[in-house]
Amino acid sequence: MRAVDIILKKRRGEALTKEEIYFFIEGYVKGSIPDYQAAALLMAICCNGMDSWETVDLTLAMVDSGDKVDLSQISGMKVDKHSTGGVGDTTTLIVAPLVAACGVPVAKMSGRGLGHTGGTLDKLESIPGFQTNLSIEEFIHAVESIGIAVISQSKDLVPADKLLYALRDVTGTVDSIPLIASSIMSKKIASGSDAIVLDVKTGSGAFMRSVRDSFLLADAMVKIGIRAGKNVIAVVTDMDQPLGMAIGNALEVKEAIEVLKNKQQGPLKEVSLYLAANMLLTAKACTSLKNGLAMAEQALESGRGLEKLGDMIQLQGGNKAVLDDLSLLPSSDQVIPVAADADGYISSMDTERIGLSSLLTGAGRSRKEDSIDPAAGLVMKKRVGDGVRKGDLLAELHINKPEAVREAADMLRSAMKISKDKPEPRPLVLGVVNKHGIQRFDSKE
Amino acid sequence: MRAVDIILKKRRGEALTKEEIYFFIEGYVKGSIPDYQAAALLMAICCNGMDSWETVDLTLAMVDSGDKVDLSQISGMKVDKHSTGGVGDTTTLIVAPLVAACGVPVAKMSGRGLGHTGGTLDKLESIPGFQTNLSIEEFIHAVESIGIAVISQSKDLVPADKLLYALRDVTGTVDSIPLIASSIMSKKIASGSDAIVLDVKTGSGAFMRSVRDSFLLADAMVKIGIRAGKNVIAVVTDMDQPLGMAIGNALEVKEAIEVLKNKQQGPLKEVSLYLAANMLLTAKACTSLKNGLAMAEQALESGRGLEKLGDMIQLQGGNKAVLDDLSLLPSSDQVIPVAADADGYISSMDTERIGLSSLLTGAGRSRKEDSIDPAAGLVMKKRVGDGVRKGDLLAELHINKPEAVREAADMLRSAMKISKDKPEPRPLVLGVVNKHGIQRFDSKE
Repeated sequence: MRAVDIILKKRRGEALTKEEIYFFIEGYVKGSIPDYQAAALLMAICCNGMDSWETVDLTLAMVDSGDKVDLSQISGMKVDKHSTGGVGDTTTLIVAPLVAACGVPVAKMSGRGLGHTGGTLDKLESIPGFQTNLSIEEFIHAVESIGIAVISQSKDLVPADKLLYALRDVTGTVDSIPLIASSIMSKKIASGSDAIVLDVKTGSGAFMRSVRDSFLLADAMVKIGIRAGKNVIAVVTDMDQPLGMAIGNALEVKEAIEVLKNKQQGPLKEVSLYLAANMLLTAKACTSLKNGLAMAEQALESGRGLEKLGDMIQLQGGNKAVLDDLSLLPSSDQVIPVAADADGYISSMDTERIGLSSLLTGAGRSRKEDSIDPAAGLVMKKRVGDGVRKGDLLAELHINKPEAVREAADMLRSAMKISKDKPEPRPLVLGVVNKHGIQRFDSKE
Repeated sequence: MRAVDIILKKRRGEALTKEEIYFFIEGYVKGSIPDYQAAALLMAICCNGMDSWETVDLTLAMVDSGDKVDLSQISGMKVDKHSTGGVGDTTTLIVAPLVAACGVPVAKMSGRGLGHTGGTLDKLESIPGFQTNLSIEEFIHAVESIGIAVISQSKDLVPADKLLYALRDVTGTVDSIPLIASSIMSKKIASGSDAIVLDVKTGSGAFMRSVRDSFLLADAMVKIGIRAGKNVIAVVTDMDQPLGMAIGNALEVKEAIEVLKNKQQGPLKEVSLYLAANMLLTAKACTSLKNGLAMAEQALESGRGLEKLGDMIQLQGGNKAVLDDLSLLPSSDQVIPVAADADGYISSMDTERIGLSSLLTGAGRSRKEDSIDPAAGLVMKKRVGDGVRKGDLLAELHINKPEAVREAADMLRSAMKISKDKPEPRPLVLGVVNKHGIQRFDSKE
């Protein structure tokens, strides 16, 4: 078998066999297939696609390139959750404790990645003392004892993804549904949970801008998960404006705590409950979504979710007292108001630009080696559809970099469009994909 | 400007600007753009194509990556000729002396390349003493004094092509009309002739199997040449069977000499005269193709073409006596007859397999570092449409490798299909492409 023949086959638009895909991935990881051949294959995949069997084989070849986490000693169905990423997407900090509080073990490995704010790991690390670099043994022990742990992904998990992702980044081959789906699912499968809920974001702040592509990605990932023997549900949710009101690391931890205290209503709570219910459903802890929603709500209202978050913070070395005293979390020197410059309605948000504004405050990283400021970020004061008058507060910048205030404020203001007409509301949850196929709740597009 | 943005643009199917193409080629040649980015761009070009302006810019960027030969001190319009390569394609050895004998300077640089036989350089080097590695000064001096020289391409000419070709070979990106056209034309343009005739082969022994693709390639190359200020004509000729009867290095030199002595009629002579006439036409040495054909015929029949070949052999250090005594050329130990195994007509030939049979005798090289046997090869005894009886001689193997006889003979026999029905004849010249566009002489496909 020769790498060039595999490239040529994909270039002609033919489906690759399992053997060809394994040959290529194994060869690439061990170095016998060079970067330039992998780059050519990746571009041919971008141009000609992969069918669902090829995508499954690619994912499994990537899983087999490294270690797999064995969670079998933890009793019960373990559930994991993944979000394709957005702005103000604090759901993990709410959902994981709620599900664990309902008796379903949550064993979650997170990446750090690049973005407008840090990842879940960065958010948790803004809690004084919190440790995410647990060993696999400590991780399993934590889940066994309190039913929840969120740690950083082991470096020996899916080495093929690390290599391919770095190459895709510099060869214009990031944006491809089979490549995105296999990258995400290889890590989820290698992490060892039995059930997986995928939160696929769609809109101006999401990786997938169009609703159609979001459903295609959700479908590709669900197919992979099912063929790998996992229970999988994907939920397509709105990211045409920030989900929560807070964007930033400590700011999002504060907001998650407020939601778990049932002091904050709105989209973040709503989507979190919906995701939690789906996690309970995939883990077979309830018989219907309605039943799952009731369980999740009860866990929230009773305070058991907050308690579970406290258990996790304590077990992972953090200061649990933050739950009662939010001032123990890092806070910025300056809080700068950003005001509306016209009357009207917030008609739309360029959510990516809001994310960039957050990045300018120091809340995120644009390169892997950048450090983040845990206190920095934004607190939004308006949502799409809200009426505003000139001078009304749109958002607050939390910032320790006086030199960046102006650019961050301008970026934020430019991202919030004010017009005379009130926009049509957009649903929070656009649909679900499971083993029965795609179910769209809207009828547009 | 970033390489990844250029890759993404081509991935989206958009046309690249001249600046983007130059940035990429210059960066690749100087090493600031790595192989893996070039591989991704090449695959995106293969999948999404390039328009004719992009192809011109790519070619000129490649030309500008290295030295250019200045032939201006040679008076008159200098003409060059290029064949896309086939089996038994000995035209250069006939055409170049004929054109030079008509007073048009032929300053030709040849590559060596891979293939079923060697390239023109290997054929010439089978003449005892013949040197192809002349300096540019010696080259110009030779053309000034006798009107003809054929030398190996300077290594400083079009370095971008050398790098890109090596990369294309291992990344499944060889077969792309803009990439093939720019590779060929960059070398022709850098070689400095004013007029260029391109012989684009089509059929089972050609790089372009389909007539349609052959015309597309011809058209792409003519457009490049014209925009670079050259007089260019492309001729699409048949390669659905070997052009000459000899396949091999010394064997083809012998056949070329026989044609120049007017002792051999047939397709090789016919195509050679047609190419020579087109070279005279592009170099403005005649007013019509008919006129050019008459000039070329006269040069052949008078023996002036043969004499010019003798001048070239002598000036480039070879033994001119071969013209009168063909036994001075290398010959093989064994000549093995290959006989027909059925009655009927030769209905078709798999010309590529005939080429592979020649390769098995030792006449060609499959890897750059392979050496070739100048004496080895095949002499065909039948053409498509000829009637045969079982036991009739199909061809002779000229071979010094007893161990390869069986495989070469089997390969040859399997390439010649014998059937009851006499096939339709196929034209030798299928059409012409010039500044006025494509003119096809057939009406099929």
